Amino acid sequence: MAKNLNLSILLDFYGEMLTEKQREVMDFYYNEDLSLAEIAQHSKITRQGVRDSIKRGEVQLLELEEKLGLAAKFDIIQNTMENIISQAKDIQFLNDKYGQNPEIYNKVSKIIAEASVLQD
Amino acid sequence: MAKNLNLSILLDFYGEMLTEKQREVMDFYYNEDLSLAEIAQHSKITRQGVRDSIKRGEVQLLELEEKLGLAAKFDIIQNTMENIISQAKDIQFLNDKYGQNPEIYNKVSKIIAEASVLQD
Repeated sequence: MAKNLNLSILLDFYGEMLTEKQREVMDFYYNEDLSLAEIAQHSKITRQGVRDSIKRGEVQLLELEEKLGLAAKFDIIQNTMENIISQAKDIQFLNDKYGQNPEIYNKVSKIIAEASVLQD
Repeated sequence: MAKNLNLSILLDFYGEMLTEKQREVMDFYYNEDLSLAEIAQHSKITRQGVRDSIKRGEVQLLELEEKLGLAAKFDIIQNTMENIISQAKDIQFLNDKYGQNPEIYNKVSKIIAEASVLQD
């Protein structure tokens, strides 16, 4: 069973749509990186039960993303933030080199700070 | 029955989670602003059926937002974009007034363009 790392992101977005038990199993597998055997022992279900639960959860998360597309939207947002920060740093550099206008410095710093919050 | 305008936004985000029929009824009511009687006639169900369907849809949309909080997240993003655009316009003004550096002008314009796409 190959681990799809994008599923970890989808789990962040849509985890609340799963049952608590299923979310726990998915979290152990995708975020804590436990083995099927370890999860089975912890959750008191069989190894096959863990495998089935993860498979079902994966299908649910992928269907949710297909319907709602929110991970894709946030991906676009993060790329945009990266571009904005990159342009802003260039402005900071140009201002530093040529004008040294303190107001421009402050305002560019604010843009970088605002964009950085959304980049996490 | 008071119309909650935020529901229109939630319908945009989570509409795909409703059945096609329910989405149609909600769309008529929230986006096309049809009356219950008009929707009943169009969808060939009773006026009370339309009312019930809308109520059920509203509960589903509100529960989805409570679980996933995506409308709230996008609201924050739009506010951030507004702030970034506002700072960028100030920089444009300052550069225009003091330095008139064409590179700064171009880079600020790019920031405004990128942020504007996400503000819609």
